[in-house]
Amino acid sequence: MAIPDHVLVRNAGSLWDQATHHPFLDALAAGSLVEDAFRRWLAQDYLFAKDLMAFQAILLAKAPRDCHKSLIGGLAALEKEMDWFESHAVRLQLNLDIPPHPTCRRYTDFLMRCAYTQPQPVLLAILFGVEASYLAAWSALVPSGPCPCAEFIERWSSADFAAYVAALGELAERHPHEAAQEHFNEVLTHEGEFWKMSWEG
Amino acid sequence: MAIPDHVLVRNAGSLWDQATHHPFLDALAAGSLVEDAFRRWLAQDYLFAKDLMAFQAILLAKAPRDCHKSLIGGLAALEKEMDWFESHAVRLQLNLDIPPHPTCRRYTDFLMRCAYTQPQPVLLAILFGVEASYLAAWSALVPSGPCPCAEFIERWSSADFAAYVAALGELAERHPHEAAQEHFNEVLTHEGEFWKMSWEG
Amino acid sequence: MAIPDHVLVRNAGSLWDQATHHPFLDALAAGSLVEDAFRRWLAQDYLFAKDLMAFQAILLAKAPRDCHKSLIGGLAALEKEMDWFESHAVRLQLNLDIPPHPTCRRYTDFLMRCAYTQPQPVLLAILFGVEASYLAAWSALVPSGPCPCAEFIERWSSADFAAYVAALGELAERHPHEAAQEHFNEVLTHEGEFWKMSWEG
Amino acid sequence: MAIPDHVLVRNAGSLWDQATHHPFLDALAAGSLVEDAFRRWLAQDYLFAKDLMAFQAILLAKAPRDCHKSLIGGLAALEKEMDWFESHAVRLQLNLDIPPHPTCRRYTDFLMRCAYTQPQPVLLAILFGVEASYLAAWSALVPSGPCPCAEFIERWSSADFAAYVAALGELAERHPHEAAQEHFNEVLTHEGEFWKMSWEG
Repeated sequence: MAIPDHVLVRNAGSLWDQATHHPFLDALAAGSLVEDAFRRWLAQDYLFAKDLMAFQAILLAKAPRDCHKSLIGGLAALEKEMDWFESHAVRLQLNLDIPPHPTCRRYTDFLMRCAYTQPQPVLLAILFGVEASYLAAWSALVPSGPCPCAEFIERWSSADFAAYVAALGELAERHPHEAAQEHFNEVLTHEGEFWKMSWEG
Repeated sequence: MAIPDHVLVRNAGSLWDQATHHPFLDALAAGSLVEDAFRRWLAQDYLFAKDLMAFQAILLAKAPRDCHKSLIGGLAALEKEMDWFESHAVRLQLNLDIPPHPTCRRYTDFLMRCAYTQPQPVLLAILFGVEASYLAAWSALVPSGPCPCAEFIERWSSADFAAYVAALGELAERHPHEAAQEHFNEVLTHEGEFWKMSWEG
Repeated sequence: MAIPDHVLVRNAGSLWDQATHHPFLDALAAGSLVEDAFRRWLAQDYLFAKDLMAFQAILLAKAPRDCHKSLIGGLAALEKEMDWFESHAVRLQLNLDIPPHPTCRRYTDFLMRCAYTQPQPVLLAILFGVEASYLAAWSALVPSGPCPCAEFIERWSSADFAAYVAALGELAERHPHEAAQEHFNEVLTHEGEFWKMSWEG
Repeated sequence: MAIPDHVLVRNAGSLWDQATHHPFLDALAAGSLVEDAFRRWLAQDYLFAKDLMAFQAILLAKAPRDCHKSLIGGLAALEKEMDWFESHAVRLQLNLDIPPHPTCRRYTDFLMRCAYTQPQPVLLAILFGVEASYLAAWSALVPSGPCPCAEFIERWSSADFAAYVAALGELAERHPHEAAQEHFNEVLTHEGEFWKMSWEG
């Protein structure tokens, strides 16, 4: 099923667009993004990924058998992504040992609170929201000529990543929950605020 | 020991003042607070108290023997406070079954994330921050003539509440932790933002 | 409603009797219990109570509004019980700082695993099982003449304790769950093994 | 470092032997194990693996960066192991949807209680105990002629599994904790009881 047809996406209304389009992304693809914004995004996205790993691990601990393979695949991919962030940071002489921005912290406070207090189907909807919105945001970008961002766009538009997101979408459908949509929408709000923070500081 | 002399308060610097003084409180004491702001504060403070109870309960589950009596006393007092909020809400025809304001939600996301992921001494410092700043904020108020707020000021300036806060302060000193100050400061930031939200909407 | 009429008790079948009758209790009431067994029981029951407090606290963190008052009352009573155990231990020169017996440890491993992984209605059924079986076991005893056990029988046959157990029974009925009976039964098995351990070592 | 030289193994004393040698294993290698015992072990080991996955996931959620790769590799291997158990069960017409044996349940109650209440270095020591004792138990076996058990011995004596166990041993050394040995020893006791249950029913 195409992502835009997923019931959680359709019912999210305009929140979906706000989570997946932003001047930050447009500037990145156009090659016009100021370096400060790029470095801020890179460091904060890394800090986000660290907490997302904990979220995904708690979800795995609560998940039934049919979710195991996809969730463990997602953990392995996230771990490789963290390696990749770390090597970019070395190359760019970017310090990753910094405090999270308040916007990043709010997002991960939300994730970790839910990880420990919400049932597993709600956590599936949350993870689908995190990953599906990322896939949509990056897949929409066309780099204007060769640019350093090509590698980033490639990663989050790849067939592998799309297959993972599709698998999460199917699991979220197979394990529905009355609180799923509300939490999916909250993810989208946090995603929109994360782009805003990356852009504006 | 007086609250302002506690090491966590002294090291918090200007954050302490920002958490314990606000035009909202001044207007309340002066009898000039607009009704909307009062009602917003009342409902959001109730929603906050519901999550604070869960935070305090998790802290109790992790706490050593010497903390039990104070923490259980605090839970019993919080439960009575919720009753009291509920009866005010009935009197004022105020609906408490509403979503939390984003500012309230951020505060409780922070609390619940910490409850499940931080060690018990950090949680003690957090709870001391929540209660000590409330005691200081309300104790500083002198109602200008008979006003409906007298009852509120009385509650959070009472000798009982002060004794509870003093007991938490002693426990936080007896169980120090290198991450205590950082989390205490985060509480103060959330407190300041809660007053701002109550005042501005 | 009388305890024996509660649906969880009725459906537990013979497990209920095995959890609430034991030679240990008969010997205690008859004044013929050997001192070693009494001391073993006292120390292990204290260690059990410490972990039960953590269980009850986690349950409170997950519980809806209508459960708060009873659960907090239960925590306050348990804390007083621990004080009382501690003063008995001083009087009897009994060391409470010992490792739990494997049987005690299995029971609390079960409780703490459930606390963190089971939904709140299951936890209510578990707590009702723990307390209702204790009330039944001790209420059935008639001390033969003045004996040191009178104080113990009194505590767990008291009107206050019976009212608490009745309140838990009502809450367990109001918040049913398909896994409640299975967990209630597991509690009874652990209760029976605890008496056996107290008796046999 | 060879497993027997690890400080946790050396300090475990005779518990190590009791956890890694058992008539069940000898009979399996000799081809003389009765089918009932084999089937019981297979089903209970599968149920154990399901809960072990939750344990490993919670550990991952609490673990620092240098543990991620090994722990995620361990999760992926465990997931494949569950697939493999499931295909054996199909072949042997063995029902895996059964309740855990009390001995299995006690072991996983212990693991899950620790997962949620112990700090990450203790959890590392526990996981090292689970895996190192399994490696030692199976590596010691020499099948007498071609036997169906060869595949099992191979799996848990393989270079891959040995490398994983060595990595866990190094992480446990790098992240020591005063409660590590005590919990490592508890694992060994549970391992011994698991073999006894497989053998005796």
